[in-house]
Amino acid sequence: MQTWSFAKGHGTGNDFVILLDRHGMTDPSPAQVAMLCDRHTGIGGDGVLRVVPGHLVDDWTGDPDLWFMDYRNADGSVAQMCGNGVRVFARYLLEQGLVEGQTFTVGTRAGARQVTTDVHGEQFTVAMGEVTVGEDVEIEHDGVRHRATSADVGNPHAVVVLDTLDTLQRLDLHRSPGWHPAEAFPAGVNVEFIVPGEPGRVAMRVHERGVGETQSCGTGTVAVAAVVGRDRSEAHTCQVVVPGGTVTVELAELHGTGRQARLTGPAVLVAEGDVHVPTT
Amino acid sequence: MQTWSFAKGHGTGNDFVILLDRHGMTDPSPAQVAMLCDRHTGIGGDGVLRVVPGHLVDDWTGDPDLWFMDYRNADGSVAQMCGNGVRVFARYLLEQGLVEGQTFTVGTRAGARQVTTDVHGEQFTVAMGEVTVGEDVEIEHDGVRHRATSADVGNPHAVVVLDTLDTLQRLDLHRSPGWHPAEAFPAGVNVEFIVPGEPGRVAMRVHERGVGETQSCGTGTVAVAAVVGRDRSEAHTCQVVVPGGTVTVELAELHGTGRQARLTGPAVLVAEGDVHVPTT
Repeated sequence: MQTWSFAKGHGTGNDFVILLDRHGMTDPSPAQVAMLCDRHTGIGGDGVLRVVPGHLVDDWTGDPDLWFMDYRNADGSVAQMCGNGVRVFARYLLEQGLVEGQTFTVGTRAGARQVTTDVHGEQFTVAMGEVTVGEDVEIEHDGVRHRATSADVGNPHAVVVLDTLDTLQRLDLHRSPGWHPAEAFPAGVNVEFIVPGEPGRVAMRVHERGVGETQSCGTGTVAVAAVVGRDRSEAHTCQVVVPGGTVTVELAELHGTGRQARLTGPAVLVAEGDVHVPTT
Repeated sequence: MQTWSFAKGHGTGNDFVILLDRHGMTDPSPAQVAMLCDRHTGIGGDGVLRVVPGHLVDDWTGDPDLWFMDYRNADGSVAQMCGNGVRVFARYLLEQGLVEGQTFTVGTRAGARQVTTDVHGEQFTVAMGEVTVGEDVEIEHDGVRHRATSADVGNPHAVVVLDTLDTLQRLDLHRSPGWHPAEAFPAGVNVEFIVPGEPGRVAMRVHERGVGETQSCGTGTVAVAAVVGRDRSEAHTCQVVVPGGTVTVELAELHGTGRQARLTGPAVLVAEGDVHVPTT
């Protein structure tokens, strides 16, 4: 056993174990990530955010003085980017005094990302890159076939519009959705079920590929906003209400088939302490 | 917000947030317990174990010098006793130097309980009181009706024997069981699904009333051992394999309709630190 310092935080219920690794000495193995994220025998989280100086990251070719978000999924695999995670990462940097000011840049596997916070340091806005709305597909869930619209936010999504909030609440998202045609999503797909409300506002639940239902999914909220606003070429915003809270997606005007997106939402740090981790 | 010291531990995957309250100053409200136990926006746990001196507990009429286990369910309600929790509580007392020796007594709402640990301080044996096997009942789950045997361990249980481990694994315990006759369990029932293996060994999954599936349930393992051994009047032991590990139930010889039980299993402390809690 070894003992590591950790923090725990969440963005709209998407939660993370944070490891500060100033000297590149706390690089968790997949088994250690899985242990940290286990909700019963570890700390519990949807993933781990390792906070490490850019100059210590082999694959990072950007500014070596940036703090790099080394994001791992709960199963120990490496992920490019996490829209909720980067807000929590940003709040952690601010509260630890590792960055200063209301606007700063962080390194991620998807590139450098600018983050802006409000005056309270509680809401964070992150550039999410380009979102593209694609073909219609079919999603099959719990014996029902739904028409869906695909979207790409660097990762694949399919958005299903339901008729009532009651239908949305009653979905059993312990059951994994299937899709047609099979070749539409060779690496699986995140499925968002939504009910549009008043203009510029939509309720969403999400089934993340390989995970199941989560309280929130940052790229999923961007996909939903883009699908709901697909007929609008001008810039606009959309509030997305997820089980863990509310986020705001800003969509820039349409350029070709894609548009730039920014995501704003809360980030909360809940706890900090020491955790006992197996040595391998 | 206020900041409290906490620890997190588990017994066979049944996990707890531990609060040391030496001076009776950290008595969490139901809302604070629910926040601490929330797996996404808090620390996460099946319950809270408040560690408080007996003389500060109004309802405690036993030895005022004992440490009292003030157990709360994740929803903030008060519970009598928790077979896995008391092992974690005991390990915490030992590691904090609050008790000494391999055998000591703790206060619980179900009375004073003697705890014994092995030489490594990793396995703990706890007196669980009396278990009584009752009437046969019917459990309905996911469209299937099963014959079941009721048992009382201070709380109500119904034990369903399945034919294969494969059937056990495939159960969808997101779905809550029902029971007949309705009056058998006016306050609900914990349902254990089991597959007996080699003699003295049984596999179990559990649906806890008001909670859903858990990794382990201490009183459930006692109920299962008593039902499996109902035709044996002599003292004997039973190993129960739950999703979170293995525990051993020792049953004393039958006296009338009941018998005394002791439960032995692991207790692990995973982390300690500070958590930020709303003031109410």
